[in-house]
Amino acid sequence: MTGEFDLIERIRQRAGSDPSVLLGIGDDAAVLLPTQGQALVATTDTLVEGRHFLADWAPSDIGHLALAANLSDLAAMAARPRWLLLSLTLPSADPDWLDGFLDGFLALAERFGAVLVGGNLSSGPLSITVQALGEASPERLLKRGQARFGDVLAVTGVPGEAAAGLALGERATPALIERWKRPEPRVDIARQIAPWLSSAADVSDGLLADLGHLLAPGHGAVIQLANFPTSPELSAAVPSREARWRLQLTGGSDYELVMSLAPDHVERVRECCRLAGLPWWIIGQVDNTGRMRCFDENGQVVDVGQAGWDHFASVSEPSKEPSP
Amino acid sequence: MTGEFDLIERIRQRAGSDPSVLLGIGDDAAVLLPTQGQALVATTDTLVEGRHFLADWAPSDIGHLALAANLSDLAAMAARPRWLLLSLTLPSADPDWLDGFLDGFLALAERFGAVLVGGNLSSGPLSITVQALGEASPERLLKRGQARFGDVLAVTGVPGEAAAGLALGERATPALIERWKRPEPRVDIARQIAPWLSSAADVSDGLLADLGHLLAPGHGAVIQLANFPTSPELSAAVPSREARWRLQLTGGSDYELVMSLAPDHVERVRECCRLAGLPWWIIGQVDNTGRMRCFDENGQVVDVGQAGWDHFASVSEPSKEPSP
Repeated sequence: MTGEFDLIERIRQRAGSDPSVLLGIGDDAAVLLPTQGQALVATTDTLVEGRHFLADWAPSDIGHLALAANLSDLAAMAARPRWLLLSLTLPSADPDWLDGFLDGFLALAERFGAVLVGGNLSSGPLSITVQALGEASPERLLKRGQARFGDVLAVTGVPGEAAAGLALGERATPALIERWKRPEPRVDIARQIAPWLSSAADVSDGLLADLGHLLAPGHGAVIQLANFPTSPELSAAVPSREARWRLQLTGGSDYELVMSLAPDHVERVRECCRLAGLPWWIIGQVDNTGRMRCFDENGQVVDVGQAGWDHFASVSEPSKEPSP
Repeated sequence: MTGEFDLIERIRQRAGSDPSVLLGIGDDAAVLLPTQGQALVATTDTLVEGRHFLADWAPSDIGHLALAANLSDLAAMAARPRWLLLSLTLPSADPDWLDGFLDGFLALAERFGAVLVGGNLSSGPLSITVQALGEASPERLLKRGQARFGDVLAVTGVPGEAAAGLALGERATPALIERWKRPEPRVDIARQIAPWLSSAADVSDGLLADLGHLLAPGHGAVIQLANFPTSPELSAAVPSREARWRLQLTGGSDYELVMSLAPDHVERVRECCRLAGLPWWIIGQVDNTGRMRCFDENGQVVDVGQAGWDHFASVSEPSKEPSP
């Protein structure tokens, strides 16, 4: 019979180490040595079975997604991931499940230089909460709500692929399912291009909602849907252009970056993304209308549906969303 | 109909502020300014309905307990509480429940100078994860596993009262129920007496288990049960001395401090606790037997039951428990 302490020991043995960790797993709390002059960036995200993932997922996919959602928040601040805490609530003490979960979680952590330093195990309905701590130069921080008149709006990757994987379920292609289960947090590119951006957020609530978070008070935006990227997988899965736009604007879970930048910086940022092999698209521009409007290539307003607009009844208000 | 963003706005309005918080609730992550030269102390704890609290508890009690469990971990490291993240998974968006929860949570946070800087809201079975970040001088840290031969072992408060409240449920007196629902994290006294302690932990798993965490490798301890404190409430609830000892040694959730210290420092620590109005009791001494043994006033070994001893089959191994 595997008990709590056996599971904790399994985690401890695989958790790795780092010179910045004075005390990791094994005391009442972890003790860490922050870098002098850096700001501490802290975020947390909870994944609940049936909401964010399904019970039949491979545990390594769940481990990847739980961490990716948090690293994506750090990426959106241009922070360097440093330390992780993991709170697992498990229906039973299943060492195989835990090993699989750690496979996905720790592989992603290692890729971005983050180390697991503590956490908590409870018994109950499957739920995973990760806290990610990162560091950033206070003057290099990427904040929301800083996009101003004339800035262009851009996004990495192909938005809507994860949402298509989620919406289509078993009818989706493996590539779309993979985009939902194994999003790639844009940590490295965000830190590279941060000096040339005025504002950024990650796409977790839906592209339109997250674009709205970028706007400074009183500002609005024009979104050019004809500029929206697609992929063969997405076009095959959602052939109707209007349905695809709706999915791209309102579906969440892409964990891509949305950003605003002065037109002068476009070529520089485009080149960085090209060198990183990452698609990057200009999709709109900030205006001072206080509203977000979407247009097709003929200049016709496209209504993407109330769901996507509800959050934006007043985009001129400061963002009301905490670190998601 | 109250939505996620309404609840988040309720939290944001009540969260307070601090000069160390560059960005609080409202961006992808919180941005904090650590104090130069201080170590960062990080812990997380999850409370699950039906395990750690009952559905019929007042929400303010749940809010208090969720934070107290985390602040107690910081206390056990002699850290000063600074910043909090709160992940709430709620079955429904109930603003009254949330307001009550925040009453208990924020009142405790304010008392210890900690500020809520971010978090996450999900929908699902009620579960609460708090992450607490504190600061401590690296040379003043209280660690586990440092208690050596000749050190005395001591505990604050009256251990077992919370466990009695839990075990007796509705048959317990209001005072015992209060000790279970509203434990007092020993933050201030821990920071005062830290310079004179060799090791400390908080009592979350059970007194004997947590005493075991204090011992340096190869060491053991003699516990003098006749020295154990009781209270009129505890004695009335559990009249049998042996049953009371068992509850005191193996019941958890006290959130008192256990500590080890050189005999030379006893009077100093006793005086600090006396001035703080906090009961403080010497309950044993560290030896080099590699075992923990409990004795009554006649020098007879008392077996407190397998449950309390299971964790200690080999106390000479390093503690296997992460920040709980």
